[in-house]
Amino acid sequence: MNTALVIEDIRLTPVLVSDPPLLNTQGVHQPYTPSLIVEVVTRGGTTGVGETYGDGAYLEPARTLAEALPGRAVTDLNGLFALADEVCDGSHAAVDDRMDAGGLRGVRNAGKIRVSAFEVACLDALGKALGLPVHALLGGKVRSTVEYSAYLFYRWAHHPQGGERDDWGAALDPAGIVAQARRFADTYGLASFKLKGGVFPPDQEIAAIRALAEALPGRPLRLDPNGAWSVPTSLYVAEQLKGVLEYLEDPTSGTQSMATVSAATDVPLATNMCVTTLAEVPEAFATDAVQIVLSDHHYWGGLHRTRELAALCRTFGVGLSMHSNTHLGISLAAMTHVAATVPGLAYACDSHYPWQAEDVITERHTFTDGRLTVSDAPGLGVELDRDRLAALHRRRLEDDGTHRERDDAAAMRRGAPGWVAPVIPRW
Amino acid sequence: MNTALVIEDIRLTPVLVSDPPLLNTQGVHQPYTPSLIVEVVTRGGTTGVGETYGDGAYLEPARTLAEALPGRAVTDLNGLFALADEVCDGSHAAVDDRMDAGGLRGVRNAGKIRVSAFEVACLDALGKALGLPVHALLGGKVRSTVEYSAYLFYRWAHHPQGGERDDWGAALDPAGIVAQARRFADTYGLASFKLKGGVFPPDQEIAAIRALAEALPGRPLRLDPNGAWSVPTSLYVAEQLKGVLEYLEDPTSGTQSMATVSAATDVPLATNMCVTTLAEVPEAFATDAVQIVLSDHHYWGGLHRTRELAALCRTFGVGLSMHSNTHLGISLAAMTHVAATVPGLAYACDSHYPWQAEDVITERHTFTDGRLTVSDAPGLGVELDRDRLAALHRRRLEDDGTHRERDDAAAMRRGAPGWVAPVIPRW
Repeated sequence: MNTALVIEDIRLTPVLVSDPPLLNTQGVHQPYTPSLIVEVVTRGGTTGVGETYGDGAYLEPARTLAEALPGRAVTDLNGLFALADEVCDGSHAAVDDRMDAGGLRGVRNAGKIRVSAFEVACLDALGKALGLPVHALLGGKVRSTVEYSAYLFYRWAHHPQGGERDDWGAALDPAGIVAQARRFADTYGLASFKLKGGVFPPDQEIAAIRALAEALPGRPLRLDPNGAWSVPTSLYVAEQLKGVLEYLEDPTSGTQSMATVSAATDVPLATNMCVTTLAEVPEAFATDAVQIVLSDHHYWGGLHRTRELAALCRTFGVGLSMHSNTHLGISLAAMTHVAATVPGLAYACDSHYPWQAEDVITERHTFTDGRLTVSDAPGLGVELDRDRLAALHRRRLEDDGTHRERDDAAAMRRGAPGWVAPVIPRW
Repeated sequence: MNTALVIEDIRLTPVLVSDPPLLNTQGVHQPYTPSLIVEVVTRGGTTGVGETYGDGAYLEPARTLAEALPGRAVTDLNGLFALADEVCDGSHAAVDDRMDAGGLRGVRNAGKIRVSAFEVACLDALGKALGLPVHALLGGKVRSTVEYSAYLFYRWAHHPQGGERDDWGAALDPAGIVAQARRFADTYGLASFKLKGGVFPPDQEIAAIRALAEALPGRPLRLDPNGAWSVPTSLYVAEQLKGVLEYLEDPTSGTQSMATVSAATDVPLATNMCVTTLAEVPEAFATDAVQIVLSDHHYWGGLHRTRELAALCRTFGVGLSMHSNTHLGISLAAMTHVAATVPGLAYACDSHYPWQAEDVITERHTFTDGRLTVSDAPGLGVELDRDRLAALHRRRLEDDGTHRERDDAAAMRRGAPGWVAPVIPRW
C-alpha cells in the first residue's frame, strides 16, 4: 500500500448553514440547516473534503465510522459499506427511525447516507494526492459542463424569527414564482425550472406552472409536490399540465401509487422518494412506476454508487436526473464531477445551491448559461475556507438546540403556531 | 490534463496462442487461437497492456480505434464507447456478422469487445504511472484472493494435425473427466468444477457429472452445453442432476427457452450466452431466465462495465460469476483485479488459463488452493515478456491463414472430415 494514501485522521465539523424560508408540504426550511463537513487527512499530508447531513442522529454513526477509518487507504472505497455495516450495526436501526428529516420519506437513513461523505472526501484526497480531478477517478468526464435547473420555491420574504435575510422577497402566487424564475434565468442563465409544490391546493400550483410556461415559453418545467397528492389528484394535475411539464416528480407516495398514476398518464414521472435505494429499483422498474430517477450521491452512498444507479437506469431505459437538498459547494462539486462522467444525462440536475448565500469553500461555484464547468483541478477542485468553516461551526456550538435537527414542521410552527404536518395524501 | 497520462502511441500485436484440442458442441479448439495484445504507451513513458480476441474481423475496428486514441488521456475511459461508436461506425454492423466465432452466439461482437482491451491497457498504464494497483482504480479490493474453478473439457490427446503437445491425454468419458478434475485439484487446488458439455449425448454427460460428484464429494459442479439442448432435454438433465449441480449453464439457447426451463426446475441456471450485453438484461431478469450471470470483461466492454453488471446483478438478486474463453495472463490479471472489487461474488470464476501453456508475461500466475492472490503491484501487476510476444507474433505472421480466424468447426473437420456444426438444439 502506498503509505502516503493511508488515512491518518478524520475531522468531522458539524455546522449550521443559513437557509431561506423555502416552503414544502411538510413545513418550511429552518433558518439554519445542520450539515456535516468531513475531512480525510492522509499520512502524505493531503486533505480531502466531503459534506453531508448534519442532524444529530447522523453524527453518531459518522463518528463511529470516522474512528474506524484511520489506517485504511483512501482508495479503499468499495469496502466502506461492509465496514459501515460492521461498526455502525448497533446504532443502525435506531438511527434509521430518527432520520426522516423534514418528514420526507426516503430522503435519509443512516444506511444510505453514512458512507457518502467519507467516500467523497477520500476521492478528493486521492485526486489531490495524484494530481487528478475526481471525474478522472471515476473513468473520466464525458462532458465538460453540467447543466443545472432553477429550483423554484414558494417562500416567505423572511423567517418569522431570526435567521439571515435575503432580497428575494416572498413568492406565494404565480406572479411571485414567475419573478423568481426570471431572476434565476437572468442571474445564472438557468433554463430548466422545477417548482417545489405540495404547498398550496393543486389548482394554484397548476396556475403557477402555466404562468411559467407563458412567461418562459419552451423551457423545461417540473413540478414536485413531494408525494402530497392522491392518485386521482395526481392524474388530474397530469391531465391539466399535459404537454406543459417535462416531468412530474413524486406526485403521490409509494411505488404502487406511482405505478397507478404512471399507467394512466403520458406525463413522465420522476422520483427521489419511491426509488432511493438499490433495493427499491426492481419493483419500480418492473411496474414502470417512474420514467426518471433522481440520483443523490448523499443518500445513494457516494459517487461510485451514483454511477451504478446510472448504469441501472441506462440498462432499463429509465431516465436519470439529480436530486438536491440544501447543500454547500463541496457537494455541488461532487455532484458536478459524477454528473460529468455519466453518459446519457438528459435532464438538467437540481441544485439548491443558488439559495445558499453561505459556503465553506474559498471560491464559490459560478453558473454560466445555467451550467457549471467541470473542474480539471486535482480532487474536487475546491478548497476549504477555514474561517468560514469555523464561523459556521461556532454557530452550531452556540445554537440553543433549535436548529440541530432539521425539522421543517417545527420551523413552520414558529410562523404558524399549531401547524401540523399534513397527513399524506394531503389533496 | 496531466500530460504524462496522455496516450502517445498504441501498439497492436496479433498473436497465435497454442491451445489444446478442447471439444465443445461447435467443434474443437484450434491448435492455435488468434489473440491480440494491446499496448498503450503514454507520453510519460508508461506502457499498459490489454488482451482480447485476435480474429481478423476484430483487428479492423481495433486498428481504427487505436488510431483515434493518441492525444487522449488514459483516464478517459467512459468516453471510449462513444469514441468507438463514432470512429468504428461504418464497419460495425459488418463486423458483428462475422464475429460469431466458434458458432457460439453472443460470445463476441465488435460493439461489445472493441473497447475492453484498450480500457484494460489504459487502467494498467494509469496504475503503473500512479503506483496503484488496478483494483485501487476501481474503488479497491474487497477480498485479497479470488477463487477460480477447474474448467473441465472433453478433449483429444492431441490435435489431429500439428499443434503443440501436452501430457493431459484424452478425456472422452466419465473416467477421463474425473482424472482431469483430480489433476486440476492436485496441481492447482481448484475446488469447483465446470464441465464443458454439449459434446456427447446428455446421458453421457450426466454420467460424467455423477462420476465427479462421487469422486470429489461436496465440490461445486457445473455443466455447460452451450445451449445445445432443447427445453425438454434441459429439464431432463436438470431433473437427473438435481442436488448435484451448483448450476446448469446455458442448457438451451435464447432467453425465452431459458426462462421456460428456469420456471420448471429448481436447479439454478447460469448464462454467458443469453445475457451478454446490458440490452439483454431487462428481459432476462423480468422472466427470471437466469439466476447467475457470467461476466466477461472482454465482451462486456471492460472492467468498469463489468462492475456495472455486478451492480445490476446485486440489485436484482441475481448471482454473478465469471466466464472465460481462451486467454493469457494479461486477461487473467484483469479478471482477478475486477473480481476482487465486486461485493458478493459467491461463485468461483471460470478460467481457461491452466490450459494455456504459453503466455506473454514474464511470470505466470500461480493458483494456490484454487485461488489467485490479488496483486497490489502497480497496474495489473504483470510485465510483458517481449521475446515470447515476438515469438507468438511471428507464429501468426508465418501462419498460412489456417488459424487467423477462430473456427472450431473447421478445426473439427481436420480430425473428422465432413463434420458440420450441429443445428441447435442438438439434443
